[in-house]
Amino acid sequence: MKLLRYGPPGFEKPGLLDRHGHIRSLASQVSDIGGATLAPAQLESLRRLDPEDLPLVEGAPRLGPPVAGIGNVIAIGLNYPGHGAQYEIPSEPIIFSKHTGAVCGPNDPIEIPPGATKVDWEVELAVVIGQRAKRIPVDKALDHIAGYTLANDVSERDFQNERGGQFIKGKSYESFCPLGPWLVTKDEAPDPQDIRLWLDVNGRRVQDDSTANMIFPVRELVSYVSQFMALQPGDVIITGAPPGVGMTRGWYLSAGDQVDLGASGLGAQRQRVICGLPAN
Amino acid sequence: MKLLRYGPPGFEKPGLLDRHGHIRSLASQVSDIGGATLAPAQLESLRRLDPEDLPLVEGAPRLGPPVAGIGNVIAIGLNYPGHGAQYEIPSEPIIFSKHTGAVCGPNDPIEIPPGATKVDWEVELAVVIGQRAKRIPVDKALDHIAGYTLANDVSERDFQNERGGQFIKGKSYESFCPLGPWLVTKDEAPDPQDIRLWLDVNGRRVQDDSTANMIFPVRELVSYVSQFMALQPGDVIITGAPPGVGMTRGWYLSAGDQVDLGASGLGAQRQRVICGLPAN
Repeated sequence: MKLLRYGPPGFEKPGLLDRHGHIRSLASQVSDIGGATLAPAQLESLRRLDPEDLPLVEGAPRLGPPVAGIGNVIAIGLNYPGHGAQYEIPSEPIIFSKHTGAVCGPNDPIEIPPGATKVDWEVELAVVIGQRAKRIPVDKALDHIAGYTLANDVSERDFQNERGGQFIKGKSYESFCPLGPWLVTKDEAPDPQDIRLWLDVNGRRVQDDSTANMIFPVRELVSYVSQFMALQPGDVIITGAPPGVGMTRGWYLSAGDQVDLGASGLGAQRQRVICGLPAN
Repeated sequence: MKLLRYGPPGFEKPGLLDRHGHIRSLASQVSDIGGATLAPAQLESLRRLDPEDLPLVEGAPRLGPPVAGIGNVIAIGLNYPGHGAQYEIPSEPIIFSKHTGAVCGPNDPIEIPPGATKVDWEVELAVVIGQRAKRIPVDKALDHIAGYTLANDVSERDFQNERGGQFIKGKSYESFCPLGPWLVTKDEAPDPQDIRLWLDVNGRRVQDDSTANMIFPVRELVSYVSQFMALQPGDVIITGAPPGVGMTRGWYLSAGDQVDLGASGLGAQRQRVICGLPAN
């Protein structure tokens, strides 16, 4: 299934994408998509529905992030060879986090914080946790995943690297984590190590790679992270960006830019870059 | 008010502490304590209640964390002179985070991850956000705070410092963030820069300091963090530990140890240290 959430920010409703690409409402079935809804039994009961029986949603509403009430956005650093020219390949996964207030819809604008000059893009495969995961072995890791979605791990590099040494400072501004368009449940999703990821800035291809090139594959990441924290349903792990980010090119996003990104089998996002207000 | 949550883990109910030190149920007033309940108008309507009119809760139930559905635990590093002997005083606040699954009740046991040898204590003042805070000036910062509570920022120092460079890895294990016993609302709380903090391990005093010695005081921290992320009601900021942690003493917590900590006006916590199971 391709689960999604549609409507104005903060008022999204649950839905799914039918085989014709139309949105069907899930409001009669679940209050929202997130937390306990992501458990295997709950997803199975949604899977048994015939989408044709669900109300068709007219028009083209805004899409929100496909998961509600995300508890934690856990991020993996430097998980592809060549991501950051100044870094060495890590001997074990680097874990950081984004504030959950960074999460937004897949096509919402990216807001440049006032005064920021190094806002950067990172196309990534996002893993959505469906079942609690604490100290799980590698061979059980995929059992704890509800599905996959696409993420742009937007980053301000001065905040990240020059303002006190922990990545979270540059990873957390509102709008810095577009997610979606859909949560593609595991049964319908492609092999997580065979997904093509791409990102264009103003139509110029800057990232184009495959999750086959991850240093630490998804099952190892989920198992590894679960050694240090008890992952909860609705937690999201973004799995690192392939090479081609602005930091290694020496140029960054400006107001008016357009960012397009996609992942094979998981859909695409488009963000306009705007100037953030001094205070709001 | 001293707001609290009581009952078994995951099934806590809202309550408050009356002037005799008894728990009164708030179940007829609010579904839980967290998120929108922390807004000034909501707190004001609770404040107008006469606790004597609320049902008395018999016995001495377990206390949970005093805030439900915490969205983010944001932590400040090195915010007292002398906290970490190997570190310099930072020129601006260091921000990191704890996975929200670390949050537990004030008297729940601290679980040593299998194989871990450097589990450490950190008594801290915790700030609970009551209203969204994005790029707020220092002189408005306190308006966005619902109240204060006590935290033990439990840390595994090898995970934190020797496993890839971001603090979150050593700060996030389940049980690594005891919070409580109460959320003391701002109107009743002491001056946040005049709170005594102390921590004993097996009856030996190891931390004893005042929030007057913070390098960056609470109002500056809230304003500063809000420049990098949009703080949400129910977010918690733990504001750094005074000197005396195990890392600087060369000894750490072991199974069987008892940790007692307190903050003037905010109550006390007691944790027994236990061995974590290999898998659960």
